Amino acid sequence: MTDLLIGLDDQTLTDRFVATRALTESLSAPLSAEDQTVQSMPDVSPTKWHRAHTTWFFETFLLEPRQPGYRPFNPEYGYLFNSYYEGIGPRYPRPDRGLVSRPGIAEIAEYRICIDRDMGRLLEDPGSESTMGLVELGIQHEQQHQELLLMDIKHVLSRNPLLPAYDTVCLPAPGTPSPVGWDSHGEGTYDIGHQGSGFSFDNEHPRHRVYLADFSMANRPVTGGEWIEFIDDGGYHRPELWLSDGWATVMGEEWESPLYWIPADGGWREFTLGGPIDVNPAQPVCHISYYEADAFARWAGYRLPTEIEWEVAASPLPVEGHFLDRGRLHPSPVTGPVPAAEAGPGNGPFGNVWQWTSSSYSPYTGFEIAPGAVGEYNGKFMVNQYVLRGGSCVTPPGHVRASYRNFFPPSARWAFSGLRLARNY
Amino acid sequence: MTDLLIGLDDQTLTDRFVATRALTESLSAPLSAEDQTVQSMPDVSPTKWHRAHTTWFFETFLLEPRQPGYRPFNPEYGYLFNSYYEGIGPRYPRPDRGLVSRPGIAEIAEYRICIDRDMGRLLEDPGSESTMGLVELGIQHEQQHQELLLMDIKHVLSRNPLLPAYDTVCLPAPGTPSPVGWDSHGEGTYDIGHQGSGFSFDNEHPRHRVYLADFSMANRPVTGGEWIEFIDDGGYHRPELWLSDGWATVMGEEWESPLYWIPADGGWREFTLGGPIDVNPAQPVCHISYYEADAFARWAGYRLPTEIEWEVAASPLPVEGHFLDRGRLHPSPVTGPVPAAEAGPGNGPFGNVWQWTSSSYSPYTGFEIAPGAVGEYNGKFMVNQYVLRGGSCVTPPGHVRASYRNFFPPSARWAFSGLRLARNY
Amino acid sequence: MTDLLIGLDDQTLTDRFVATRALTESLSAPLSAEDQTVQSMPDVSPTKWHRAHTTWFFETFLLEPRQPGYRPFNPEYGYLFNSYYEGIGPRYPRPDRGLVSRPGIAEIAEYRICIDRDMGRLLEDPGSESTMGLVELGIQHEQQHQELLLMDIKHVLSRNPLLPAYDTVCLPAPGTPSPVGWDSHGEGTYDIGHQGSGFSFDNEHPRHRVYLADFSMANRPVTGGEWIEFIDDGGYHRPELWLSDGWATVMGEEWESPLYWIPADGGWREFTLGGPIDVNPAQPVCHISYYEADAFARWAGYRLPTEIEWEVAASPLPVEGHFLDRGRLHPSPVTGPVPAAEAGPGNGPFGNVWQWTSSSYSPYTGFEIAPGAVGEYNGKFMVNQYVLRGGSCVTPPGHVRASYRNFFPPSARWAFSGLRLARNY
Amino acid sequence: MTDLLIGLDDQTLTDRFVATRALTESLSAPLSAEDQTVQSMPDVSPTKWHRAHTTWFFETFLLEPRQPGYRPFNPEYGYLFNSYYEGIGPRYPRPDRGLVSRPGIAEIAEYRICIDRDMGRLLEDPGSESTMGLVELGIQHEQQHQELLLMDIKHVLSRNPLLPAYDTVCLPAPGTPSPVGWDSHGEGTYDIGHQGSGFSFDNEHPRHRVYLADFSMANRPVTGGEWIEFIDDGGYHRPELWLSDGWATVMGEEWESPLYWIPADGGWREFTLGGPIDVNPAQPVCHISYYEADAFARWAGYRLPTEIEWEVAASPLPVEGHFLDRGRLHPSPVTGPVPAAEAGPGNGPFGNVWQWTSSSYSPYTGFEIAPGAVGEYNGKFMVNQYVLRGGSCVTPPGHVRASYRNFFPPSARWAFSGLRLARNY
Repeated sequence: MTDLLIGLDDQTLTDRFVATRALTESLSAPLSAEDQTVQSMPDVSPTKWHRAHTTWFFETFLLEPRQPGYRPFNPEYGYLFNSYYEGIGPRYPRPDRGLVSRPGIAEIAEYRICIDRDMGRLLEDPGSESTMGLVELGIQHEQQHQELLLMDIKHVLSRNPLLPAYDTVCLPAPGTPSPVGWDSHGEGTYDIGHQGSGFSFDNEHPRHRVYLADFSMANRPVTGGEWIEFIDDGGYHRPELWLSDGWATVMGEEWESPLYWIPADGGWREFTLGGPIDVNPAQPVCHISYYEADAFARWAGYRLPTEIEWEVAASPLPVEGHFLDRGRLHPSPVTGPVPAAEAGPGNGPFGNVWQWTSSSYSPYTGFEIAPGAVGEYNGKFMVNQYVLRGGSCVTPPGHVRASYRNFFPPSARWAFSGLRLARNY
Repeated sequence: MTDLLIGLDDQTLTDRFVATRALTESLSAPLSAEDQTVQSMPDVSPTKWHRAHTTWFFETFLLEPRQPGYRPFNPEYGYLFNSYYEGIGPRYPRPDRGLVSRPGIAEIAEYRICIDRDMGRLLEDPGSESTMGLVELGIQHEQQHQELLLMDIKHVLSRNPLLPAYDTVCLPAPGTPSPVGWDSHGEGTYDIGHQGSGFSFDNEHPRHRVYLADFSMANRPVTGGEWIEFIDDGGYHRPELWLSDGWATVMGEEWESPLYWIPADGGWREFTLGGPIDVNPAQPVCHISYYEADAFARWAGYRLPTEIEWEVAASPLPVEGHFLDRGRLHPSPVTGPVPAAEAGPGNGPFGNVWQWTSSSYSPYTGFEIAPGAVGEYNGKFMVNQYVLRGGSCVTPPGHVRASYRNFFPPSARWAFSGLRLARNY
Repeated sequence: MTDLLIGLDDQTLTDRFVATRALTESLSAPLSAEDQTVQSMPDVSPTKWHRAHTTWFFETFLLEPRQPGYRPFNPEYGYLFNSYYEGIGPRYPRPDRGLVSRPGIAEIAEYRICIDRDMGRLLEDPGSESTMGLVELGIQHEQQHQELLLMDIKHVLSRNPLLPAYDTVCLPAPGTPSPVGWDSHGEGTYDIGHQGSGFSFDNEHPRHRVYLADFSMANRPVTGGEWIEFIDDGGYHRPELWLSDGWATVMGEEWESPLYWIPADGGWREFTLGGPIDVNPAQPVCHISYYEADAFARWAGYRLPTEIEWEVAASPLPVEGHFLDRGRLHPSPVTGPVPAAEAGPGNGPFGNVWQWTSSSYSPYTGFEIAPGAVGEYNGKFMVNQYVLRGGSCVTPPGHVRASYRNFFPPSARWAFSGLRLARNY
Repeated sequence: MTDLLIGLDDQTLTDRFVATRALTESLSAPLSAEDQTVQSMPDVSPTKWHRAHTTWFFETFLLEPRQPGYRPFNPEYGYLFNSYYEGIGPRYPRPDRGLVSRPGIAEIAEYRICIDRDMGRLLEDPGSESTMGLVELGIQHEQQHQELLLMDIKHVLSRNPLLPAYDTVCLPAPGTPSPVGWDSHGEGTYDIGHQGSGFSFDNEHPRHRVYLADFSMANRPVTGGEWIEFIDDGGYHRPELWLSDGWATVMGEEWESPLYWIPADGGWREFTLGGPIDVNPAQPVCHISYYEADAFARWAGYRLPTEIEWEVAASPLPVEGHFLDRGRLHPSPVTGPVPAAEAGPGNGPFGNVWQWTSSSYSPYTGFEIAPGAVGEYNGKFMVNQYVLRGGSCVTPPGHVRASYRNFFPPSARWAFSGLRLARNY
């Protein structure tokens, strides 16, 4: 898939807009019209919906308010492709997105071309800082949907008994994971939250002071091999390891392993975007819920880090790792050298797998919601979710940073989510 | 749509096989890959599933058992495209048919071509009566799925807020319905059930004797205009008109009109396979449940006929009426002359709309289930369903007859179902 | 329990009113306030609800309309204790009957005494035929609730892990069932439905003519021992024996035996109103659904009778058998002599266990619904139910007759329901 | 109700045990056997279950392990009355507690007497510190269930259309609430969590250091009158005020006011343990969810405090306020003087209504779960819940303290829960 991806290091906003829009189309290219139509659960959106929704974002927040007399591409699209912005008006119910066969992929491709052309004109003379800020927000928003598109289509294809591949994916040979080491951090006050002039989301603000006791972070994520030990030790059958809601979920959903794992001849296989493969014991475990991450940490005698600890530990390090540009669409083994500061692409805090933290997703002290519909971006989800940090192998490069806060409900497993252990000493 | 349909009056079994297979493809032709993938409720199947399932029927019941060493087109298809035959093995869950994007329509077209070619060879020398009987059963089975395909895609498209049309449909101008007349039948014993040498389903057997008291049948179905009177008289808000389960359904589903009717400016529009149109008061009401048919009859001071009464009344008449070959895909107005014996295409018992009877679907005295998986055809559905008779505007011509028994649960509304009144005198 | 029951053979309407009212109180006497409050599923009503509802019936349909200026005992009771009469006004939701702790059993006892006193005055001079007819209807209605009270409290107690007994019940020793014989009936026309001057429900009317082919009825019900053979032969694991909806229910509810059966050391025990006992192989199987009755008959190579066949076979016989007055509250073994005409109390068509027929519950030709709220009695349930005939060991004596039609949905199992086989020759 | 309550200030552990056990019986005394049996939703337990479960706690954790050869009162009670201790063995499903009529209240009273007698003997010579610690835990546990008992029976009685009172409750006349003042606290590090030698729960540990920015707390809770302003300003109809999950709950549950409020003639009444009364505008609003508290704070231009802020503000104040010993069973108006330090019983942080904080319920840094089944006490609920602080008018006196952490899911409303506002300056 390597030649599919387009570099995103270009300098100008226009270049980045063009590259981002092109990447979405590249990611959709291996998928048929049928693939792009299916919704496999309410949390999942069809590929063609992602392509249209990200386009609707630019149309609604940039073109409509900034172009006098703007005529929408199709007045019904506002209803069909609004995701959750209550301020924009009523919207088509999320769980029914898979019922809408029209517009089809040809009409959506046309929609994208048309809006891109109009956006091109707007970008020739964006005029104000706020316009450029909204374009940047639209780019970042589309990057989030690029990752969602891959998460979602993986779930869609996994429900097909034929277990078809999204694309040919090149996977490394199994190896031996590096031993776990611990990076320690001393007690004291720290400042966390976004700083600097680069883009950031509202939920990373304001930068604020916190107090931390001593703690250490494992220098690599938990591996598939370690997860097999957890399973073999009865991990999914011992209520004392689980949060009460977690245990109810394990029982109700009959979980016996991470999502996408398939028992096979006494061992384990897993479904990937390249089809089913053997679980690689040196690869970070992936597609686990918060409940499973928490139970594993208890079983191992450690705990999850808070998001504050994670950020304090990650902030000094460069944002390098295994992102979408590697084209693997699956986590890399963690076989590199020990210290996180020198970590290989799969070991460091960034990329490979998102890492669950023990922090409920909540507003930072002093958090303010932006006015208008765009302000519905992050604040209204700050309940019943837990924070993940670091990005994954399907996160577009350049999208994450140390202060970046991702979040999912504690039972969610279809993200590329793993864990890194912490301890109090 | 007229040139889309292929005559089915040809003489030979092979000709009829070819024509039936071609008609399915004609009916699918207006639909995109996206359209053919969607399942809008558990009762509905995707178009591409109908195309594959009818093909699987020929492969499974004809090619596999009759061709030594037969290699299936794809061994997984037996799992994916078995509808409900427990005797054949496990099958993919019906409510999830809309989650399967692959095989896509191109592969299914190839599947159809391949099986048709093999069937062509088999038909050159079918060998036995039983083989020919199974081919005939496969043709009849595919005709049933042709009607289901149209029912199902109508439901799919109706869930799209854009209310897209399946195809261009030519509709007649509104007219005045003919006045209702009553055809009376005297008490006595009658024989009902299939007779003669033509094809019939197992549930039409054995022909047996029944006793009937005097009764009369209305000489045309109830119209949309009459249904508007029922609505205007509070029909959907008066529990005394309804069966207890029917009233619970009206409350729970918030029914205020037939399925597909849309309130508009004090009047009514309805969604059709040609898109939304004004309700034609002279057209038979359609897409009503048994509960609604029963409540209407009570409101009107009459009752539904039993299926026995219906058959006794219809048996002497020719099987002529408005079937799929007219290409309208919507019921015709009932504006013809009065006596049923001379009825116009929309008035007689055959075609236009299926007619609910008050008969629970149950085995005739002496009914025997055929051995083997094909024997699962009809008997196992003989509970919790009510019988409809007569065929509709989307039933392939030549498919129904006076003894033909269709059936749906009493809450079902997505069939082209209407009603004809009866009385005791 | 024998001294608990009060003879119902008395002559006058007043005597019968008094005896019926007293029997309800006798049946409630073994139950604590707590027992009388619980509702174990939506179909079940608390004992104290039955006691109040039957009283409300007399208050609402007799006292209120016939006593000028009548002041209700408590104006809220009309809302709380209306079962399903839409014509009377809104009512408390059925599934929530177990949430209402007040009025308690003391207040309901007072309600019964108060209404009985008023009814006593009314019965001194009932005045019209129609009043006497309504009193009779109220008595019959309360008899139906006496059986429901016992069915319901059995279900309530069965959900308690302590499996407590309702009362001490004297059970006979196991025995050997009599061999099955067949009573044959010739083809021809018959008249069925109620005749004569005794009480009957609306659904037994009008008496009307039917045509029947030759058939035979088994001379005793199917036994627990025969049901064990069905289980041991994989009866609950062979889809080919079941109706499609039945098989879905078996899978969904994980049925492996009749309701109340408990596997124990390779054999079977069952919960009764006297607590858990060993299944008696000579006793009629009880607490089975229509689906199970139908599957058993198919397995055995026979079929269920229609309700018409059952009535034709039972009509010549005296209405004698094992009813509630025996005080056993559990079916008797069928060990008597062979011909049904000379059958012992457990063998004949009447009493012991209700017998499922293959007939959907529907109106007889010419059926008319009585005007007013009392007319909601039976007609509105004529859908999605199957007819049972004969009465059971918890039916009050004198309540049933050959033309009596009981009915339940095909999945219901908490009635004392069994089956009797039929065949076509 | 004043003479109902027994003082809990006695010195010895035995005295406190006796007083606590007696208080539970006093609280149950106004309730009939029927009242004590009902479960109105899965979160609610029947009164008699609370009485038995608190007794089972002493039997299981004190008597059984400490008395050699101890024979349980009834071996089935371990199954029936275990609440959620997985380590103790299987347990009866929580949502079915209302289906168990036996043991009845007489047998449960006997159970309590019997265990109290055995506990009396054990307390004569408790032997070890750990035994005394477990007795203290049992007392505290029973106090929690005393509050739950009142919360639960309020919910049970509210579902009865007669809206019966639990008991006669004396309510103050409406008054004018004191104006809101703000108590400010400066930025810096603070230590929070339990300190000292008194009893505490595991979740209050370890005491640990935190950093806080400047903040202020309102000096009294939000009132019913202020909540009516929120309603009148469209509070329940403006999605921009709500968390996304909160808005979905408002829509799904059709919330228009706090739980137990009843619209009446343009004003509001509310159901209390004394029956329905007019909403008192000076009384703290009560029975609101976290979602509602959060939406109100946003509407008012403020925010909820974190639990850390709440504890820092409350720690210096005496634990005085309106608790269960006042016998009112309903919040008191907040009409006292302004500064929290001098607050009247309804204004200060303690008692009257629990106050939602914005803090997700999670382990304090360094939290350790106690070994054994008792260790299941608090830790396993640390997900999907939010912390409330301060106690309420139905909390037993002496039970809460500044570090006490109560918690409920964000949609829960049946606790006596209100809110106190905070701000950043």
